[in-house]
Amino acid sequence: MNILITGGTGFIGKRIASHLLRAGSIQLDGEEPRTVEKITLFDAFPGESVPRDARVELVTGDLNDAAAVARVTASADLVWHLAAVVSAAAEADFDLGMRTNIGGTMVLLEALRARHSRPRLVFSSSFAVFGGELPPVVTDQTALTPKSSYGMEKAVGELLVADYSRKGFIDGRSVRLPTITVRPGKPNKAASSFFSSIVREPLAGQNAVCPVRKETQVYVASPRMALAWLMRAMKLSDQALGAERTIPLPGITVSVGEIVAALERAAGPEAAARIRWEPDAGIQRIVDSWPVRVHAARAAALGFPVDTDFDSIVRAHIEDELTRP
Amino acid sequence: MNILITGGTGFIGKRIASHLLRAGSIQLDGEEPRTVEKITLFDAFPGESVPRDARVELVTGDLNDAAAVARVTASADLVWHLAAVVSAAAEADFDLGMRTNIGGTMVLLEALRARHSRPRLVFSSSFAVFGGELPPVVTDQTALTPKSSYGMEKAVGELLVADYSRKGFIDGRSVRLPTITVRPGKPNKAASSFFSSIVREPLAGQNAVCPVRKETQVYVASPRMALAWLMRAMKLSDQALGAERTIPLPGITVSVGEIVAALERAAGPEAAARIRWEPDAGIQRIVDSWPVRVHAARAAALGFPVDTDFDSIVRAHIEDELTRP
Repeated sequence: MNILITGGTGFIGKRIASHLLRAGSIQLDGEEPRTVEKITLFDAFPGESVPRDARVELVTGDLNDAAAVARVTASADLVWHLAAVVSAAAEADFDLGMRTNIGGTMVLLEALRARHSRPRLVFSSSFAVFGGELPPVVTDQTALTPKSSYGMEKAVGELLVADYSRKGFIDGRSVRLPTITVRPGKPNKAASSFFSSIVREPLAGQNAVCPVRKETQVYVASPRMALAWLMRAMKLSDQALGAERTIPLPGITVSVGEIVAALERAAGPEAAARIRWEPDAGIQRIVDSWPVRVHAARAAALGFPVDTDFDSIVRAHIEDELTRP
Repeated sequence: MNILITGGTGFIGKRIASHLLRAGSIQLDGEEPRTVEKITLFDAFPGESVPRDARVELVTGDLNDAAAVARVTASADLVWHLAAVVSAAAEADFDLGMRTNIGGTMVLLEALRARHSRPRLVFSSSFAVFGGELPPVVTDQTALTPKSSYGMEKAVGELLVADYSRKGFIDGRSVRLPTITVRPGKPNKAASSFFSSIVREPLAGQNAVCPVRKETQVYVASPRMALAWLMRAMKLSDQALGAERTIPLPGITVSVGEIVAALERAAGPEAAARIRWEPDAGIQRIVDSWPVRVHAARAAALGFPVDTDFDSIVRAHIEDELTRP
């Protein structure tokens, strides 16, 4: 198997690559296991701690560079399309978000279409496709009403992936991800970045800023769950998906107060005391526009797992990131 | 007022132009009436029977020609964006549909954004944004599930118009139109074209082909209603719309059998006998994928009118197209 991961030097891309390298093979539903021969990590940035392995090729490039994209897609059997300008960055620089999140996705889809081999693609979408006045519980049938350019661009991506799949150009599937937290590494330009910082930094003995109120609720999932979901989405057969190509995924709903309580249970009150509360109306507004309660019936029917609680998410972060083997 | 109509030589574009020329002015909700100074009809085709008037300028050009689009948008206050590659044509030529319906819309939106004056735009979308397994009644909150490239491209257009409006680049509003019938003129490449042909041709003493079963239902509106709606959508204030920029419109649901019965009531059994029934599985499949029953609550609240029945649609066609003054 020849695998391409766009946004491959991001933390989820690296986790998928590490997982595949360790496994050595991938078994798609209804097929024999197949050897992982090559993993191309395509990214605008070279990144840090990229897995070193003879099977890994790191290609630094721009999704809007059609020649570069044609090269990295030339023999790809499976593609995880994770590359994106994140929420706050796409809001701050509209042109950049449009160019990467819509333009780049179009270039990638065209390159895959030109292969005439119907490669399989998993597109990481987001619950930011919803915003504004929402029903109390968002379901698989709720209309898309993005209230951020990032959310709009992800919604467009879902529509493109579905139509390219319907036309037989690709075998695509979009997964609508909750906020993934606790993310390792440094804060990024996602408006949701602080949800990770307020756990990650105190656990590492550093201070963090929380820009929203304690009662603010958020729909989250752990990095472990994101990896499990992105693998599951790739393995699902064409037939299991049918005509509908988007899978909204089952996160858990927690308040910022509950996140801080879980941090305190894991690392004591001195950890929680490292959070400085500095309200930011802009971030509060963006976060408040995201859906909080979701009923992800389709994902459940397709066998996608779900995190148990935020305490286990904190424990997993400690195991994965703070416990050196 | 300086007015731009893309797809301006199409039959709806010409009706809007004629209406504005006759009225001489346009009064937006909450504003004073303003004189119609210039109407630019921008279209890929020169068209026929374009209104002749000193205030009308016909510009033949391509929506993907950014320089041409910049010229026609340079002083436009109000824009009706009607230009599109229609359903069957967009399905037959994927690249053409993408280039015009998404690419062209993007060029237009960018040109309007570059004005920095927040021009008002009405975008004609379509109920083809829905398809596949739908709830018994489609509402304003039903998720977009296009099952044609045309429908996907219109859905993307709605999302773009909403985000350009949210960002303050334009004051946009998308109207989701039912199948407009009885259209005057010749058949076009829309899969829905025959819904007009089976009335129009027999009334003109010609034969027509119906490619779907008599019990096939369709959600329709008259050309008169389309004109009234497109005018209403332009006049609505920014405040009346708020954050949601798409208005699904209230058509009526009729079966092909009921259409033929209305034709027969208007013009006798010899007219109905001019329809040849030639089932076409491809067209049946496309038409069957469109929503049939719709509850357009928002449009009702915003004062959009609705046709009374198909008999009145046939009578209006006879008055507007077959009765020479």
